[in-house]
Amino acid sequence: MILTDVTLAEAGPDGFALTGDAAIAIEGGRIAFAGPAADLPPGGQRRSMGGRLVTAGLIDCHTHLVFGGDRAREFDMRLNGASYEEIARAGGGILSTVRATRAADEGALLAAALRRADHLIAEGVTTVEIKSGYGLDLETELRMLRVARRIGQERPLRIVTTWLAAHALPPEYRDDRAGYIDHVVIAGMEAAHAEGLVDAVDGFCEGIAFSPEEMERIFDRAAALGLPVKLHAEQLSDLGGAAMAARHGAISADHLEWLGADGIAAMAGAGTVAVLLPGAFYALRETRMPPVQGLRDAGVPIALATDCNPGTSPLTSILLAMNMGATLFRLTPAECLAGVTANAARALGLSDRGRIAPGMLADLAVWDIAHPAELAYRIGYNPLHARIIGGDLA
Amino acid sequence: MILTDVTLAEAGPDGFALTGDAAIAIEGGRIAFAGPAADLPPGGQRRSMGGRLVTAGLIDCHTHLVFGGDRAREFDMRLNGASYEEIARAGGGILSTVRATRAADEGALLAAALRRADHLIAEGVTTVEIKSGYGLDLETELRMLRVARRIGQERPLRIVTTWLAAHALPPEYRDDRAGYIDHVVIAGMEAAHAEGLVDAVDGFCEGIAFSPEEMERIFDRAAALGLPVKLHAEQLSDLGGAAMAARHGAISADHLEWLGADGIAAMAGAGTVAVLLPGAFYALRETRMPPVQGLRDAGVPIALATDCNPGTSPLTSILLAMNMGATLFRLTPAECLAGVTANAARALGLSDRGRIAPGMLADLAVWDIAHPAELAYRIGYNPLHARIIGGDLA
Ligand SMILES: [Zn+2]
Ligand SMILES: [Zn+2]
Repeated sequence: MILTDVTLAEAGPDGFALTGDAAIAIEGGRIAFAGPAADLPPGGQRRSMGGRLVTAGLIDCHTHLVFGGDRAREFDMRLNGASYEEIARAGGGILSTVRATRAADEGALLAAALRRADHLIAEGVTTVEIKSGYGLDLETELRMLRVARRIGQERPLRIVTTWLAAHALPPEYRDDRAGYIDHVVIAGMEAAHAEGLVDAVDGFCEGIAFSPEEMERIFDRAAALGLPVKLHAEQLSDLGGAAMAARHGAISADHLEWLGADGIAAMAGAGTVAVLLPGAFYALRETRMPPVQGLRDAGVPIALATDCNPGTSPLTSILLAMNMGATLFRLTPAECLAGVTANAARALGLSDRGRIAPGMLADLAVWDIAHPAELAYRIGYNPLHARIIGGDLA
Repeated sequence: MILTDVTLAEAGPDGFALTGDAAIAIEGGRIAFAGPAADLPPGGQRRSMGGRLVTAGLIDCHTHLVFGGDRAREFDMRLNGASYEEIARAGGGILSTVRATRAADEGALLAAALRRADHLIAEGVTTVEIKSGYGLDLETELRMLRVARRIGQERPLRIVTTWLAAHALPPEYRDDRAGYIDHVVIAGMEAAHAEGLVDAVDGFCEGIAFSPEEMERIFDRAAALGLPVKLHAEQLSDLGGAAMAARHGAISADHLEWLGADGIAAMAGAGTVAVLLPGAFYALRETRMPPVQGLRDAGVPIALATDCNPGTSPLTSILLAMNMGATLFRLTPAECLAGVTANAARALGLSDRGRIAPGMLADLAVWDIAHPAELAYRIGYNPLHARIIGGDLA
């Protein structure tokens, strides 16, 4: 198939790069040609896109899309003045999601996750990363990733899975942190890897979760399995998690509001992508911004994602993540587009998508807009005209 | 038609009021019965809603939905470091929207506005208020309201129009404020009223726009025509606009971040609704919150709206306005629901909608959610199952 009458929109280091009067030729699910229509070889089945703007298919590189229940009652209680202690006593917090996820079977988890996935698909998302981390036991963590894989069978959507058993310590291991890491995080990672369920390994490195030393032990075992690593780091404090992750060759470090100069330098040196999550910043009403200018100056690639999760970012709009990246973190609209295309692919360790170039997967989004800045500018508006994945309109 | 197997969800002064195992009977486009199914008289054509939750159709009581162009380039320039002066020199700011609106014919304005209206419709909105205010000349102001009325013919959506010629001073009247008020604001209001285009009269009362004294002169003429008044007040400073509007019996005062105790008392005394606009607060990165607790204590009804406009709130999601009302302004989820139903109706001076009760218009929204708090809790997610307007599924 050849898409004609398109304007190619990509984000480069100096802002948007637009190619008008362009065409994209697709063969075998990949881009065979992308550029000025004048340079297109003759022949082929052509389909006009009516002059519309085309970007790479969007990539949501950090989500917790699979989980049981929701946290709307807790949200309600908090806004009615309940303290965190009262909410915890009423069964709220992350452990309420763990209970609901453990109680849900594969079908229930899948049905709920598909509704969220459909919102992302409707906005031109073609690849979604999905983490485990609400099971906190071997069986449920594996079930979460099986459901994640099934989303990719049920929908025209590419799924990348992440093992995040090191998300929180479950009550049954309250007095045995090392036992949890051995028997659930590491043993589960090996079992999940054997089942082909894991594309990368992640952890929540924070005072309320796991220490850099604990994460290093997990990362060493991930390396032995050949699995790339990444880290939730420097969200609430600076524990040096990003620098530690960079030393382990992490593909990304995520959140980063408290990231310091050492962490930036380590990430730049290791090529670790900074994944910023403005939905969580917004929902938690944080005031400390990630060091965007420092990341720019050091040449650290910046990605943006929804962090879709029931507690701190019940966000299922990648376009809104772009708007929040601009509005709250002062990223430029071009940086927002790079953040959900080329840099998001890089955050997942993938070099076959996120750009419109020969050899790339033919994952594209066609937009009813005149300029790509509109994608980040509008709030709660979806100008998607068509989505193409592997060369198919879907 | 009788809707069976529904849970009625309304917001009262003490939070949500839920009626399970309920039914709604509709006759002649109005609600004839709403309550426990056990109390429903026998007979009638029944349609099961599968146990779903039903609210009144949502009402967006403050929008600038009709305008030409967009301000995405200006957004881009600002995030790339341009100063307000540079943007103004490049032709940005509100006057760029005025130029684009003046240049657009009725068909172009309508096509652009319908796309925005469709986003609201998809979220269960059944009534939308639309203001003029980007023409700033007689002809274009009238054209904007003709387009607003046409939206209500083209779509199953009830439109309420507002004359807002007192939005900004156009360049051609830079040295003749009184002349603009006489020859455009007041003369146009009379012409628009004669054409049946105006349901209420509004103004932007601010140092950069019109003074309370100037607005009073306009309000006096509105009163002579029997038109209700409202005011954009106390958004950037406290000029006493809300109190002045309340003295004129205003149906609402909108924005209100700088509203003081006197303004609250005046609004409470006059029954003026406080319309809060968190989209503009968010997009402008304001830090001063409207006095929510003071409004509550005084018993001033609080409404929420998108303020959809190209400059300061390019927001076309009423559900996101609810989430922002909760997240940014700390409204409870029940206050958010009241803010887009009963209190939004009151802000428009309408007593025939916004609640699920006999005699009300049969404008309803049916949701795929278990609890109404979910409407405010999620971010960028639309759980609408069906929309009913005047008794028709549409
Ligand atoms: Zn996360
Ligand atoms: Zn407004």
